[in-house]
Amino acid sequence: MRVLLTNDDGIFAKGIEALYEALVAEHDVVVVAPETEQSAVGHAITFLDPLRVKPVKRNGAFFGHACSGTPADCVKLAVRELMRPLPDVVVSGINLGANVGINVLYSGTVSAATEGAILGFPAVAVSIDSFEPSDFSAATEAVLQILDRIRRFGLPRGVSLNVNVPNVPASQVRGIRVTHQGQLTYQESYDRRVDPRNRVYYWLTGNIVETENSPDADVRALADHYISVTPIQHDLTHYGMLDELKRWGLEGEASAGPSERFAGRAG
Amino acid sequence: MRVLLTNDDGIFAKGIEALYEALVAEHDVVVVAPETEQSAVGHAITFLDPLRVKPVKRNGAFFGHACSGTPADCVKLAVRELMRPLPDVVVSGINLGANVGINVLYSGTVSAATEGAILGFPAVAVSIDSFEPSDFSAATEAVLQILDRIRRFGLPRGVSLNVNVPNVPASQVRGIRVTHQGQLTYQESYDRRVDPRNRVYYWLTGNIVETENSPDADVRALADHYISVTPIQHDLTHYGMLDELKRWGLEGEASAGPSERFAGRAG
Repeated sequence: MRVLLTNDDGIFAKGIEALYEALVAEHDVVVVAPETEQSAVGHAITFLDPLRVKPVKRNGAFFGHACSGTPADCVKLAVRELMRPLPDVVVSGINLGANVGINVLYSGTVSAATEGAILGFPAVAVSIDSFEPSDFSAATEAVLQILDRIRRFGLPRGVSLNVNVPNVPASQVRGIRVTHQGQLTYQESYDRRVDPRNRVYYWLTGNIVETENSPDADVRALADHYISVTPIQHDLTHYGMLDELKRWGLEGEASAGPSERFAGRAG
Repeated sequence: MRVLLTNDDGIFAKGIEALYEALVAEHDVVVVAPETEQSAVGHAITFLDPLRVKPVKRNGAFFGHACSGTPADCVKLAVRELMRPLPDVVVSGINLGANVGINVLYSGTVSAATEGAILGFPAVAVSIDSFEPSDFSAATEAVLQILDRIRRFGLPRGVSLNVNVPNVPASQVRGIRVTHQGQLTYQESYDRRVDPRNRVYYWLTGNIVETENSPDADVRALADHYISVTPIQHDLTHYGMLDELKRWGLEGEASAGPSERFAGRAG
């Protein structure tokens, strides 16, 4: 397959190098990744500033395009401008640090895959549950297996897969589990400090507190040393709330002109 | 109610000023908003850099706290550090430019409300369908009506409301419609230019192409001059895909130790 490979830790990160090495053995890989670390940028895109691109070498050979933007920018720019022919699949990772539970929303890694899905390509985000992983082989192997399935079965338009890998040797991974986004709560605070010029600044700090999760939640599967695979979409509507909201009496119907209810109070 | 007010166009934007003026007449308002414009930052949060806060005046009087971070940072910092007692509700806006369809994902305005919901507060994001609005009164009136309903009926934990207002005089607004996130497609491209030092740079450009939408989609309601109110949640799981993914044969069960299937290929 023709793979567009990106990440959010930046083009010089170890995770993208490991994934590249594993993918090139079987696939045609084009790397477009952020120039610098872009952790927790979420689904940020850049249009107030222009983007710049420069070639990056590894071990003396061309490795990929470093882009001045976010992970989502990299995917957009690759698809709209840099990569011809277009990719068969977008792969993002390997991110250092799990992207399960609410972290899915903050994650640049996942957002790159989501952007791929928005643009109409099957997409996979992959993260490992460590900031100092000893071994990427379980993660790379999982991605290869998943690409094989995507090739065979396809993914519906708009769907991407969020893959999280436990930080254990591949032989100790208990298997792959299809999961949903679970519950994580942060016990957060800001560390208030004073700089040498006597000005206050704040560092975000905190720990994850795992709340109750069913065995098929990504958080729990990962803790149990399974690789979690969660299908992701980008409609944020809470459908269960629609009927309740309709009972709030906000909708002044207006078949014959402006809503009297709304216009009445607004006038 | 005690309102935490933020936005993504920055603390000096017209939209937050208009909303502040409307809210202070009925509510106790604390402003914590980005120092500079943060459009399209999505759900970015800042932890690689510290945050700074400074007081901002308008017309000679204290207006609020300007924060060096993103909209989501503003909400986190307010709730975790700056605002005591805690808010009853988080309000984000008024954003210039509609946040309907896929823009919900890119929007810093919506992400501020989502962050409020994640932290356990009812939250409302409000945007107007223009970059040069003539009149904010329909938007401010809609927010006041919605806060009234939130006070009376509450919102389940984790749910926020994404409100979009057409750019017409309040008397021409046809009413409020409870909606779901609709379909928008961007016809995007990058404008490739060369700078005076002969280096290439790219500007993101493009137009929105409306695709088919039912009358209860936010995109369509707004185009029909209704105010759209969409309930938003932050679980991105595509539940409809779970069963299909389970049929992909990735899950090697491992009740008695490592998955042979996975370990076999990965070893």
